[in-house]
Amino acid sequence: MEIKGFTLSAVEAAIKKPGRLDLALIMSETPATTAAVYTTNRVKAAPVLLSMERSVTGVSQALVVNSGNANACTGGQGMSDARETSRLIAERLGIAEDLVLVASTGVIGKPLPMERIRGAVPGLFEPSAVTDLDGLARSIMTTDTFPKIAACKGEAGGVTYTLAGVAKGAGMIMPNMATMLAFLVTDAAVEPGYLQSAFRDAVDASFNIISVDGDTSTNDTAVIMANGLAGNTLIKAGTPEAEQFGKSLRETLLSLARQIVQDGEGATKFVEIRVTGALSTTDAKQAAMAVANSLLVKTAFFGQDANWGRIVAAVGYSGVEVDQELISLSFDDVLMVSQGVFAGGDAEEKGSEVLRKREFSVTIDLGLAEGHATVYTSDLSHEYVSINADYRT
Amino acid sequence: MEIKGFTLSAVEAAIKKPGRLDLALIMSETPATTAAVYTTNRVKAAPVLLSMERSVTGVSQALVVNSGNANACTGGQGMSDARETSRLIAERLGIAEDLVLVASTGVIGKPLPMERIRGAVPGLFEPSAVTDLDGLARSIMTTDTFPKIAACKGEAGGVTYTLAGVAKGAGMIMPNMATMLAFLVTDAAVEPGYLQSAFRDAVDASFNIISVDGDTSTNDTAVIMANGLAGNTLIKAGTPEAEQFGKSLRETLLSLARQIVQDGEGATKFVEIRVTGALSTTDAKQAAMAVANSLLVKTAFFGQDANWGRIVAAVGYSGVEVDQELISLSFDDVLMVSQGVFAGGDAEEKGSEVLRKREFSVTIDLGLAEGHATVYTSDLSHEYVSINADYRT
Repeated sequence: MEIKGFTLSAVEAAIKKPGRLDLALIMSETPATTAAVYTTNRVKAAPVLLSMERSVTGVSQALVVNSGNANACTGGQGMSDARETSRLIAERLGIAEDLVLVASTGVIGKPLPMERIRGAVPGLFEPSAVTDLDGLARSIMTTDTFPKIAACKGEAGGVTYTLAGVAKGAGMIMPNMATMLAFLVTDAAVEPGYLQSAFRDAVDASFNIISVDGDTSTNDTAVIMANGLAGNTLIKAGTPEAEQFGKSLRETLLSLARQIVQDGEGATKFVEIRVTGALSTTDAKQAAMAVANSLLVKTAFFGQDANWGRIVAAVGYSGVEVDQELISLSFDDVLMVSQGVFAGGDAEEKGSEVLRKREFSVTIDLGLAEGHATVYTSDLSHEYVSINADYRT
Repeated sequence: MEIKGFTLSAVEAAIKKPGRLDLALIMSETPATTAAVYTTNRVKAAPVLLSMERSVTGVSQALVVNSGNANACTGGQGMSDARETSRLIAERLGIAEDLVLVASTGVIGKPLPMERIRGAVPGLFEPSAVTDLDGLARSIMTTDTFPKIAACKGEAGGVTYTLAGVAKGAGMIMPNMATMLAFLVTDAAVEPGYLQSAFRDAVDASFNIISVDGDTSTNDTAVIMANGLAGNTLIKAGTPEAEQFGKSLRETLLSLARQIVQDGEGATKFVEIRVTGALSTTDAKQAAMAVANSLLVKTAFFGQDANWGRIVAAVGYSGVEVDQELISLSFDDVLMVSQGVFAGGDAEEKGSEVLRKREFSVTIDLGLAEGHATVYTSDLSHEYVSINADYRT
């Protein structure tokens, strides 16, 4: 897939185990309008601090990312390593260092192995580098089991443009945001202010409604670069073109977000949690997130146990307004609870059938008003425990 | 151990599997000054709703409890079952129904098996009933692996009194409060207002600083009954006797709380999380609780992995004021992090040694001010997943 004016490149820098891509570069021929969203964690990795500083200009031309080492909790050395990484790229490209963003993911608290990065940077510009979206997606994987890619075409003023993105997830997945990297590129020409607001909205409607384990990482970074080389007339807020672009952006990010949950560490289930009838959208999301993050709910999903009582209990402690006598709950379209009590009949058997599926939905109607929200989550399995008990070994 | 004027009784009502005590009664010869604290979950089990209504008077004379069935999310039927259970006891004792409190723990959403309870109540008054604290403690166990008991003697005005209590925990353990039942009895004479405030304080300093899995149940109930039959002069707030009583109460509850964490579902570690140097006590507790509830931290504890980065990350997303360059962290007395970066030297090896212990502490100094707090937590093991994936089967 061609995204005009963008070149991708990924190599092995031996930060991860041999045979795995772990250093990658996104380059635009020209400076690109850029929007970014970063972790809300108060402890921020060096590359996050550096990229936050640089992306405020709304313009960037390259992004360098490594996996295997988060460059987090690494102090002044971490900052100077992140700067050096960007400088190595800037020098090669002959552009200002400030136009290079940096991202990292992996183990916290270990210094970035700079000699390996220095040694590997030249390879990014050689024909042996992997230059497709799949390579970029694989280069940012840590405990992910498959690369996450989404792309689409759009049209603005008769000109076709391309929007493509990659993401990584797996563990530490929780708004706002997740241990998550997401890089989007488009050759569409987009008004900077609109790009920023559309990207923020799309992140809210995708990466911020998923949860694997409730942990928010130090390294979350989502960036979109729009270089305008498709040649369309500038997409401006309030136009039909902006509406279409915004919709494409939301769908692309939502696809990546769903892939992240599907590939949640040790996940065997993909569950859509819908809360309706809440006092507000905020309440609905808060209740849905409490269910999505309940260990007891998640282990019941893993056990394929239609244990609706734990879900009702999670809604009850979520902190939102609830009247237990008005709650109803369904697994897919099987009504399990009506007005706070078990629906009876063959609900138990039918509900258990739903939970044996790989993907299903849980709908909780609070019966109070019109607020509603949906979040996506996975189950909690033995494999999650194994992966995270042994992550550094 | 004798607690003057109190009789305990426990029998098998076949609510749980055969051979296990599951129905118990605490009786006082005379009406007892009573204080109680209940779950903050908005979804409350029928026995909680009923006991809340009754304990506002500050007086009770008996408490009947069953395990194996929570009588939660059972609607009007659940309320009438809870009332009938208390009536069966009141009739036997010849006391007003309002003097009988009710508690339940177990599976949510199934009707209480009333025919079994009706059949078992007479046994509570027969010589074959188990009449000690151990029997009471065992009768409220669900996934608990050992009975939880604490007792002590105190003195007021030259008269010795006894304070004793039992608790259950295991899963759904999280403030405020936990899937937790705790029943305390004392023959001390205590001023009602002081008993309520001392009990609330002691609950805050014990059951509200522990977390196993972050889920708050629908059934949490902690009750203390003080019948005054030791014959001491009334313990009043602001006196040395009150100070001693309050201290004993805190220590007794803290002992029960520690036992609950030690017996957390699948727990292999008992970890004390201390946060110091926070802007306030509230901040310190919030940060400590974020660490205690982080799945990534808990699985690292299980894996005996000195993964301090996950702890720092959890502090970072806890929502409290943090300056990452001021954070230091120790496992027991091994300094792992100083001013936000790895302490170096042999910290990794020494820290790993600490994590191989059954019990250890984690101290996080935020370096900002004087706020400090301690919470207790367990690790997250394969066994937790197994227990909760299969709980109802």
